[in-house]
Amino acid sequence: MKREHKAEMKARARNIVLKVAYDGTAYHGFQRQTPPIVAVQNILEEKLQTIFGDTIELAAAGRTDAGVHAYGQVVNFFTDGRIPVDRIARAANSLLPDDIVVRAAGEADTDFSARHSAKSKTYVYRIQQGEVPDPMTARYAWYIRRPLDVAAMREALGAILGTHDFSAFRASGGAPMSPVRTMYEATIEEAAGQQLICRIHGSGFLYHMVRNIIGTLANVGLGVLTPARFGEILEGRDRTKASATAPACGLYLEHVDYGEAFPF
Amino acid sequence: MKREHKAEMKARARNIVLKVAYDGTAYHGFQRQTPPIVAVQNILEEKLQTIFGDTIELAAAGRTDAGVHAYGQVVNFFTDGRIPVDRIARAANSLLPDDIVVRAAGEADTDFSARHSAKSKTYVYRIQQGEVPDPMTARYAWYIRRPLDVAAMREALGAILGTHDFSAFRASGGAPMSPVRTMYEATIEEAAGQQLICRIHGSGFLYHMVRNIIGTLANVGLGVLTPARFGEILEGRDRTKASATAPACGLYLEHVDYGEAFPF
Repeated sequence: MKREHKAEMKARARNIVLKVAYDGTAYHGFQRQTPPIVAVQNILEEKLQTIFGDTIELAAAGRTDAGVHAYGQVVNFFTDGRIPVDRIARAANSLLPDDIVVRAAGEADTDFSARHSAKSKTYVYRIQQGEVPDPMTARYAWYIRRPLDVAAMREALGAILGTHDFSAFRASGGAPMSPVRTMYEATIEEAAGQQLICRIHGSGFLYHMVRNIIGTLANVGLGVLTPARFGEILEGRDRTKASATAPACGLYLEHVDYGEAFPF
Repeated sequence: MKREHKAEMKARARNIVLKVAYDGTAYHGFQRQTPPIVAVQNILEEKLQTIFGDTIELAAAGRTDAGVHAYGQVVNFFTDGRIPVDRIARAANSLLPDDIVVRAAGEADTDFSARHSAKSKTYVYRIQQGEVPDPMTARYAWYIRRPLDVAAMREALGAILGTHDFSAFRASGGAPMSPVRTMYEATIEEAAGQQLICRIHGSGFLYHMVRNIIGTLANVGLGVLTPARFGEILEGRDRTKASATAPACGLYLEHVDYGEAFPF
């Protein structure tokens, strides 16, 4: 039945791909929920249905949690609707609330899947420093008052580069899949306004993996853990040795890379 | 009666001054409202009462409108409460919601008034440019898609410097007072992330004055009005010739200066 339904969807004329940004504060994550609980997907599908005239079922690159934001979420859906591709973003944004924005739209081959065709993803995590919190960043960064030792954090973060079993940073709620992932890049930028911007680019991420890495990394920055201890925790593959999960509000799905499959 | 009440308040032992930041999105302005309508003042007074143990009545430097933000709102109040001045900010912030923050606290002479002792104020207005809106700045800036001519806006804005009758930019709802004000500084900075930051420092501001200046200035940036026409509108003192009021979300009460009276 499910396979038949999928085949039916794929029989539609077009496979539309959207790059979406959202402020996740007001939503119960990206993935569709049963009303009255509202997820980003509920709102997007409802507005796209209005524009395309048929039932829309989105597939998404990443299922961000409640409160997590995105600048580069990618979704695709099959439709017989005829609106030209260069008008989709404007049409969608005129219907969407201010906290969800279609940044770009494109059209792909039938076998392109925002979820399964992804080659790698980049997440950003923002930490707000400062003697007092900033109410204008409360929704968008994790506020840590005590100054963090960024050099120590950078040293620790180097341990995740390359291919590792990331079980130490995996939450229990995730789907059963291999815990081995490859990290290509992991940087910490000291940005204006006393913000630390941590950027991690990898082949894929386990459930809560970035937030668990950041929670442990913050303890390195606070001097609770040494950079060497961070590496030991990773290699030990024991979730109970890592620190508490960092808050959702600091996390952003920044970019999804599809290589040649799609030029977003 | 009102004078007696004031004298009673002033008889209290201490005159506490706070510098306050807030995200105004969720509030019906700064000035106290009758519940269930909630203003920033309602929340602040409630939490300060818990800390100081007596009834708190705040006086504020500026009565910001619904949706307007602040980094440098200043308030004062009289109290017999004994909490040391260097513990006030931490105590208040532990009780306040994330969108209201006490940035600093001090103690002043009895005759200091956050409202009446102010020598000058600085407002900031943020405009977000860009091909598509940014959901993370929707609450904090006015989104204008079409690129603005910043050079023309700077030329126009120069007209407000010095002493003028600002009736052209005065809203009808304001209290009856002289429309003459002096502007010391007015700049437009092109900031990172495609933001324009307009900063106006003046002796005082009429009701909606900054938002009316910005609304008209945006039309200069869009080429609807020439810089010379902006100056003519100011000198004409006729509100019906100026443009629509810019949205509240872009406006910030940035700083209040008290000269030697208080070193905030």
